[in-house]
Amino acid sequence: MLSIRDALEAVEGRWKLLILYALSENPKRFKQLAREVSGITDKTLSKELKSLELNKLIRRDVYNTFPPTVEYSITPHGLSLEKVLDELHYWGLTHRREVIGK
Amino acid sequence: MLSIRDALEAVEGRWKLLILYALSENPKRFKQLAREVSGITDKTLSKELKSLELNKLIRRDVYNTFPPTVEYSITPHGLSLEKVLDELHYWGLTHRREVIGK
Repeated sequence: MLSIRDALEAVEGRWKLLILYALSENPKRFKQLAREVSGITDKTLSKELKSLELNKLIRRDVYNTFPPTVEYSITPHGLSLEKVLDELHYWGLTHRREVIGK
Repeated sequence: MLSIRDALEAVEGRWKLLILYALSENPKRFKQLAREVSGITDKTLSKELKSLELNKLIRRDVYNTFPPTVEYSITPHGLSLEKVLDELHYWGLTHRREVIGK
């Protein structure tokens, strides 16, 4: 069970997997993420991004433009969560039919 | 993203998936669960079991013995989370090597 506990701790909370899912398409800037992950506040998004970066699930790149451009992208390690996300997605669809839909 | 949000809401928190994982082997009584899901308090376990039952992920059976026996088992719907759990398990193992192990 330790492995499941580790996994849950890395992605705990309601936001991290949603953020990773949004980044799995392509790299995004803070504002884009804030729009796509609807309901998240800027403060929470900023906190979650730091935690995901610490866990090596995303990377933060600063580009040398004026003004500087900051972009977040998913790492190979974060991308390896894709199967988990896919299974969660399929299961969520079933769950809606089974429980919420009724 | 709605489906992922639904899925995350049904299993939110650090305990629900661990409880389901413990029940995926075979039905268990409260005391057994409390022992296997180490670190959980009786109060939290009881609350989480009720929420899992509401979401039709587990079933609570009362047997007509003296004293009555109560047993919790995973439903087919809960079992359908198995793939998610498997993927989380594998990913947790990788995550330990990648991030925690270093």
